[in-house]
Amino acid sequence: MRVLGIDPGLTRCGVGVVEGSIGRPLSLVDVGVVRTAADVPIEQRLCLIEAGLEEWLDATSPDAVAVERVFSQHNVKTVMGTAQASGIALLVAARRGLPVALHTPSEVKAAVTGSGRADKAQVGAMVTRLLRLSEVPKPADASDSLALAICHIWRGGAVNRIEAALSAHASIHRPTRPAGRQPTGGTHR
Amino acid sequence: MRVLGIDPGLTRCGVGVVEGSIGRPLSLVDVGVVRTAADVPIEQRLCLIEAGLEEWLDATSPDAVAVERVFSQHNVKTVMGTAQASGIALLVAARRGLPVALHTPSEVKAAVTGSGRADKAQVGAMVTRLLRLSEVPKPADASDSLALAICHIWRGGAVNRIEAALSAHASIHRPTRPAGRQPTGGTHR
Repeated sequence: MRVLGIDPGLTRCGVGVVEGSIGRPLSLVDVGVVRTAADVPIEQRLCLIEAGLEEWLDATSPDAVAVERVFSQHNVKTVMGTAQASGIALLVAARRGLPVALHTPSEVKAAVTGSGRADKAQVGAMVTRLLRLSEVPKPADASDSLALAICHIWRGGAVNRIEAALSAHASIHRPTRPAGRQPTGGTHR
Repeated sequence: MRVLGIDPGLTRCGVGVVEGSIGRPLSLVDVGVVRTAADVPIEQRLCLIEAGLEEWLDATSPDAVAVERVFSQHNVKTVMGTAQASGIALLVAARRGLPVALHTPSEVKAAVTGSGRADKAQVGAMVTRLLRLSEVPKPADASDSLALAICHIWRGGAVNRIEAALSAHASIHRPTRPAGRQPTGGTHR
């Protein structure tokens, strides 16, 4: 199973691809960051992130995508941009029909270090050891994206399979309203 | 000038198209909502919002897009989804090369009612009056998207033109790093 982990961000979107399965050694496929400059208007930055992630998907052909779940209580100043970048990450993956899962930072830390409260250095050290690398991947966003991919492999994509099953069940048994142009009554010409 | 206003949201994305220019009467082109069901996985909802907004852009061919600026201090429970939906709105507009502007809720209220603290009912009443409609567009998200479009027309797209000029200036004078695959040293195979 090949997993693309995405640590979303406007300035740096960490992207790491890991191959492996539960109980077998993991291997690094590729790792890097999609960057956008802070002086570029937000809508252009989102386009650049979309194009950057599409390039990674094309180049590495993952079987699944794992995205870090963003919480609103964290750094209020950057959280909106991070949420927008995570929306783009979820979109590009789902548009290709790839299974997508969200993992919280504590789930990721617990998966790779055994503790949900581990610090960045500990996560970096474990990623380096687990993937048998010669040094810690930099910047931290790149290292975190690999931890996300590892977490996803070790959780066996279970969260996602359960969600997919539930949603398939829901879509069969409960008709959902289609998206699209739904003019409201009275004001529609 | 034809403006598509988008009031972003996961459950209801208000979309309203208004034609007009400063000092001339405004006219409604179309208004509605893009809906996604709460039991659909988030990544699928974002895909549905992208498709829904694309449909609106195709059908109404706006000259510009105005999106409501989301603040993190508002309703913490829904703010992440709203931010993700706004990211998709900014993306689909910018991808087409359309000028995009963000207006805050108070800017919109001040533009259509004269007060930045006006309530939903007041905004709805003014939208109905300004567009000479027979009733207030429902739901509130639809009405708010029209207020956004009106705000954008009355501000003359000025904010956006200034931003565009500044960003053009910046991109000429300050080379920005390209987005895309930027492998980090040492861990790249």
